[in-house]
Amino acid sequence: MAGTERIRRVANIVRRQQEAGHEVAVVVSAMAGETDRLVNFCREANPLFDPAEYDVVVASGEQVTAGLLALTLQALGCKARSWMGWQVPIRTVESHAKARVDAIDSDRLCNAMAAGEIAVLPGFQGLSIDGRVTTMGRGGSDTSAVAVAAAVSADRCDIYTDVDGVYTTDPRIVARARKLKAVTYEEMLELASVGAKVLQTRSVGLAMKEGVRVQVLSSFIDDDAPPADDLPGTLIVSDEEMEKLDMERQHVTGIAHDKNEAKVILTRVPDKPGAVANIFTPLADASINVDMIIQNVGREKGETDVTFTVPQADLARTQALLEDRRESIGFNRIITDSQVAKISVVGVGMKSHAGVAAQMFAALADRGINIQAITTSEIKVSVLIDEDETELAVRILHTAYGLDAVDEAA
Amino acid sequence: MAGTERIRRVANIVRRQQEAGHEVAVVVSAMAGETDRLVNFCREANPLFDPAEYDVVVASGEQVTAGLLALTLQALGCKARSWMGWQVPIRTVESHAKARVDAIDSDRLCNAMAAGEIAVLPGFQGLSIDGRVTTMGRGGSDTSAVAVAAAVSADRCDIYTDVDGVYTTDPRIVARARKLKAVTYEEMLELASVGAKVLQTRSVGLAMKEGVRVQVLSSFIDDDAPPADDLPGTLIVSDEEMEKLDMERQHVTGIAHDKNEAKVILTRVPDKPGAVANIFTPLADASINVDMIIQNVGREKGETDVTFTVPQADLARTQALLEDRRESIGFNRIITDSQVAKISVVGVGMKSHAGVAAQMFAALADRGINIQAITTSEIKVSVLIDEDETELAVRILHTAYGLDAVDEAA
Repeated sequence: MAGTERIRRVANIVRRQQEAGHEVAVVVSAMAGETDRLVNFCREANPLFDPAEYDVVVASGEQVTAGLLALTLQALGCKARSWMGWQVPIRTVESHAKARVDAIDSDRLCNAMAAGEIAVLPGFQGLSIDGRVTTMGRGGSDTSAVAVAAAVSADRCDIYTDVDGVYTTDPRIVARARKLKAVTYEEMLELASVGAKVLQTRSVGLAMKEGVRVQVLSSFIDDDAPPADDLPGTLIVSDEEMEKLDMERQHVTGIAHDKNEAKVILTRVPDKPGAVANIFTPLADASINVDMIIQNVGREKGETDVTFTVPQADLARTQALLEDRRESIGFNRIITDSQVAKISVVGVGMKSHAGVAAQMFAALADRGINIQAITTSEIKVSVLIDEDETELAVRILHTAYGLDAVDEAA
Repeated sequence: MAGTERIRRVANIVRRQQEAGHEVAVVVSAMAGETDRLVNFCREANPLFDPAEYDVVVASGEQVTAGLLALTLQALGCKARSWMGWQVPIRTVESHAKARVDAIDSDRLCNAMAAGEIAVLPGFQGLSIDGRVTTMGRGGSDTSAVAVAAAVSADRCDIYTDVDGVYTTDPRIVARARKLKAVTYEEMLELASVGAKVLQTRSVGLAMKEGVRVQVLSSFIDDDAPPADDLPGTLIVSDEEMEKLDMERQHVTGIAHDKNEAKVILTRVPDKPGAVANIFTPLADASINVDMIIQNVGREKGETDVTFTVPQADLARTQALLEDRRESIGFNRIITDSQVAKISVVGVGMKSHAGVAAQMFAALADRGINIQAITTSEIKVSVLIDEDETELAVRILHTAYGLDAVDEAA
């Protein structure tokens, strides 16, 4: 949310929802730039900040927006009140600055909403077991919104973002990318985890667990835009509802890319029981998230090369951890490459349709793109390629799977 | 409080207090300009704002400072935590935006302080009976500080302000004004209510009621300034303690002035029972604070002129209210004058010393200053004069009562 003008737009959206007959709860984020301002204050005060006090400071951003949205709704003639995280309360567990919603006591909220009062809640914030303010990490407002929607048994959780929906791929790369009318939770999770950051991954996971129907749509809308009930954005739903929606389904829903991976090769690792555990246990202990893993038979008997990917930000730590264990692991060399990209094709449809992976490999091979590694899940095939070929690969695959828009301008 | 640099200064002061062996609770105000910014947001959102939501928005200013001061104290190696108004809780009564402290549950605060943890509290904010955020009106942080000091039975409540103490008069008018080492609660109330706005009047009243020793001192201090225990500011205490302090007492402690009054004269009001009530009841109903009242016998038998003062800001409303009641009150004309000033001499010493008032009238008459009205209380004599003569009158009286500093430069 930006300044008070942006709050006024949101208030108009909310009022139209109420006029359409809905009981409405709104979860708000801080005004644009506000969280950064508050985080900077904390850094100036104490570079090694206490997360409990950090939470007190940064939670104030959403508190201000919540009060201002309630005021703006009242100015539009609506009944509205704000509910701080500690007032509802939204009980959270785990550590400060990255709390997780545990339970929401929604009785008072539901009573107020049933009486026609719009409930305005600051996102991102909750209450710890010992009665202190908690926050949920950047993007936590999405998770708050889903948690509140679940607690009040909402028909739908509309999340207003900087984009107007989820696309078949990044429209900055493929001009003919199409906005999807609906995706399943699983597809959204795969798309988010490979770089299509529309929603915080955790919020999609929670929506799946709680069965909350989510609509992603743009907060930059005109007053004459279609109301949210006409579903102008992208609906995120269960497999079952997706089938009922009875849309023409493609085998592949979207193409995602992620340039933030780095490749690590350990050469001539002893090919014996426990060798691989020796590599990955210390990385797991250091919370380094290893993604793709390939084990190749080496040139020498009894030896093997192990290839894997880690987030680029963790590459230096990964190298240091492995160098420290060169003797115990017994490898020969570490080769690293951060000039790689992961390209993924995602779609629930591939569960029941063989050949999606083969089609991917063939399309890339046709254009001379070399595949360095492959991983697959039930609804996703990912390949690692040279980073320079990212855009080319995404365009090739978008066309190959028939995702290009036909009505709209190229 | 200004930005994080100002917070760092305050943290240093607090640390020195703890190092001197004190258990410390700190009550903070918002950073400079922050409350105005938040109030403006509220006005933009809804000019007729709901005070309950206004409180949610503006209370965030003190919340931010409290978290940042706790972080800064931790960076200095102190144990510290913030306590929001709802966490203590600081229970308040009466309306939003001008709440009054009712009770403070100080057990947890005292336990934390006894364990060596500095308690940092946002001033100005509390918790209503129905569990919502309240604020106490501008300057409410002073009142919060005194209320917390009373709740934890503090030895002393140090209030750091823009000035370094209470002076015999406004140093901008009289260069030889002296900083007072101590004043009584009653003197401070009279000085505050007549324009020497160092502390919020309400906070002084509360300190008197609860017997909290208050020290006013400057927050703009160097690291080599004397510690607060050396009482570099002005102490505000009871009559009894003042006597024990055994200082050389003047009959008059200070001279105050107030240019915000306006004079109203109603001519030829019927001199009969109930006439005066007809004038002042509607003003009281409209919350207009009438100060001085003088009734002169008029030229005609059975008639009288009534003169009184009201705050200049209420003059237009006062005129309108009285014009509406011209018939029922039965006056002839309304004459108003906002070019007036109230000059007051204040001192507990005058209780036991006759002639203070006579000395005032003589000193002013000597210099040809005309007195338009007079009011007196046990420890104060106030006169209404022409506003142009304010500075002259203050200087004359400051000298007449022997208040001019002799050591310092004129």
